[in-house]
Amino acid sequence: MEINNQLITILQEIKRQKPLVHHITNYVTVNDCANIVLALGGSPVMADDQDEVEEMVSIASALVLNIGTLNKRSMESFLIAGKKANEIGVPVILDPVGVGATNLRNEIVRRILKNVKLSVLRGNMSEIKNIYGIAASTKGVDSIDNPLDGGKEIALELAKRLQCTVVITGAVDIISDGGTVYYINNGHEMLTNITGTGCMSSSLIGLCCGTGKGSLHGAIAGMMIMGIAGEKAQSRLKEYEGLGSFKVYLMDAISKFSIEDIQERGKVNEIK
Amino acid sequence: MEINNQLITILQEIKRQKPLVHHITNYVTVNDCANIVLALGGSPVMADDQDEVEEMVSIASALVLNIGTLNKRSMESFLIAGKKANEIGVPVILDPVGVGATNLRNEIVRRILKNVKLSVLRGNMSEIKNIYGIAASTKGVDSIDNPLDGGKEIALELAKRLQCTVVITGAVDIISDGGTVYYINNGHEMLTNITGTGCMSSSLIGLCCGTGKGSLHGAIAGMMIMGIAGEKAQSRLKEYEGLGSFKVYLMDAISKFSIEDIQERGKVNEIK
Amino acid sequence: MEINNQLITILQEIKRQKPLVHHITNYVTVNDCANIVLALGGSPVMADDQDEVEEMVSIASALVLNIGTLNKRSMESFLIAGKKANEIGVPVILDPVGVGATNLRNEIVRRILKNVKLSVLRGNMSEIKNIYGIAASTKGVDSIDNPLDGGKEIALELAKRLQCTVVITGAVDIISDGGTVYYINNGHEMLTNITGTGCMSSSLIGLCCGTGKGSLHGAIAGMMIMGIAGEKAQSRLKEYEGLGSFKVYLMDAISKFSIEDIQERGKVNEIK
Repeated sequence: MEINNQLITILQEIKRQKPLVHHITNYVTVNDCANIVLALGGSPVMADDQDEVEEMVSIASALVLNIGTLNKRSMESFLIAGKKANEIGVPVILDPVGVGATNLRNEIVRRILKNVKLSVLRGNMSEIKNIYGIAASTKGVDSIDNPLDGGKEIALELAKRLQCTVVITGAVDIISDGGTVYYINNGHEMLTNITGTGCMSSSLIGLCCGTGKGSLHGAIAGMMIMGIAGEKAQSRLKEYEGLGSFKVYLMDAISKFSIEDIQERGKVNEIK
Repeated sequence: MEINNQLITILQEIKRQKPLVHHITNYVTVNDCANIVLALGGSPVMADDQDEVEEMVSIASALVLNIGTLNKRSMESFLIAGKKANEIGVPVILDPVGVGATNLRNEIVRRILKNVKLSVLRGNMSEIKNIYGIAASTKGVDSIDNPLDGGKEIALELAKRLQCTVVITGAVDIISDGGTVYYINNGHEMLTNITGTGCMSSSLIGLCCGTGKGSLHGAIAGMMIMGIAGEKAQSRLKEYEGLGSFKVYLMDAISKFSIEDIQERGKVNEIK
Repeated sequence: MEINNQLITILQEIKRQKPLVHHITNYVTVNDCANIVLALGGSPVMADDQDEVEEMVSIASALVLNIGTLNKRSMESFLIAGKKANEIGVPVILDPVGVGATNLRNEIVRRILKNVKLSVLRGNMSEIKNIYGIAASTKGVDSIDNPLDGGKEIALELAKRLQCTVVITGAVDIISDGGTVYYINNGHEMLTNITGTGCMSSSLIGLCCGTGKGSLHGAIAGMMIMGIAGEKAQSRLKEYEGLGSFKVYLMDAISKFSIEDIQERGKVNEIK
């Protein structure tokens, strides 16, 4: 399939370029984010002080902003790093963890969207709906429950409005660049039972976008790789094994990820 | 046994309610705390900025305060979140990591005890003895070395004084609500050789208390579940496996935890 | 071999003394650093607030300063803790993560070197070359690419200048106290594919130096233990296993580490 060939190219470019992915992220899942980037062949760096984020993003191939444990200090760093990334053409991925839960999270997302041009916005249905509402300033955010019931339209519309790629993750991942919409049918529900799979997906998207192959294909590649790794991890589980083993097998699957995985397991479809 | 039935109810309620446990905690073991809450069926959230902790605790079922890597910023957040939790009836669990080691730790514990009504205080013998001394302001804290030699009296007395459930963890866990005292004889000494088992116990207690079944039974349930999971993890170890595998098996055991585990392995006794 | 006997003594002293290793470190790999210290038989503590680091280092046997995610707050703590450690004779290990990448990192390293007497400086070739250049203020830092091509001279010269033990880690580890130079030929390249092996090496060096057996032998012991554990972890991997399993096996190997491992696998040589 045409799209698979482009995802394979991204995978090969990661191994060749070893892109540096600068994260300003939360302290809950940061270790997993660093390890997943390394495991796929990239190079992670985490730095959040206002006095060094500009320099750090200047040597990076992608910037991942994750607001999981934001604070007033890191909020300024998000904006400084994001603006610098825009200035020098480094793709910016935003993971708006928990937006909608507190005003502080709404505020930082609003400020980032106002000041930074995103390449990819990735969130779950609740987060994306919140941003959709925030951005619209008029529409309620609680009307849609099933991502497949309205997710396509929200992704498409929000992508147009923000002029970036929007990813809604769930049982099916919905990805749109404002023109086309893709569904990815990879993954396993066990992924929702360990912390950080959302954050790790954003890191993988950052890594894939860091190859310079575009935000739409970068987002699709990142989500598909995470989904397939989840499937492979689950398939290795013995009856008596649980989430501890699953997480180990997930990282194994990422570090063993191959072209064949995409060819044999990849399930992405453009939705008309 | 009567008590086991109540613990089983808590386990069932966790699966049914999926309580949200708000943590203000250290950056050393935070990932493990999040994963253990998820693995048992709850929902963890970590947020520590003063400007959002009130809102976050307002949507939570329990609040866990862990001072492991406290700083002046998080100290204020402990108090703000704790007071709000009291106001709206959310149970507060305090894990006074390392209290006694520095004045800063003594100070924050003193301020929390003065301003926040706890549901559960959980620490090791050294920490609880320090608090016993602090709260009394008169009694030395180094007189007792073996938890079984004095722990019962300290737990009972401190629970009365603070009007909360006190948990002293060790080879035997001692739990008192100021009226009764329970000993739990589950666990394995390997639990002391990985970081965060204390923190994770506090998170499990938070999760169990988040079901609304009371702090005494919540504390007993959390400690027993941790102890049994440690036993099961150790029993899976092959001769050549060590602490890396143990931690994986521990998380496996939590995610596979069942009613039968309590019925077959639970060792809790009320001490007269 | 003479040197091996000294390393074995350090290993035995760790089990006997259980040294407390105070870390001021980054939030990316901190959990692994705590676990590796515990797994070898030591006791880790992480504390970074300016108001408690002096007290904490006062009860510690070693201090590890790691600038991985430095910020203006932790920068002051590095200096306060380092000076106190010097005052009371606690060995200080510096891990200058990413020095050279940003001015902030260069600045804190310069300030630490000016104000704190190190026992051990451990970095990769790029980091050590940067410090060599900073300290000299005259020599460029980009002239040498292969650690074996110039690393020996840099380690020897920098160790003399800073009057401490310098460790350059790579495929071969180069260690000098300014008088002698040792090469360690243990390790496996998979160690570079998980985050934190550098940080963990520094923690192990801190633990080994915490036994009071000197910084040169402490540094050699720490690096050799890490290297051998990496070899053993890799040798356990099945064909379908990857970096997730490798990390588990690494921690297993540390917790099972024995005198025989040093005797049978240790590869350290003094270079004339």
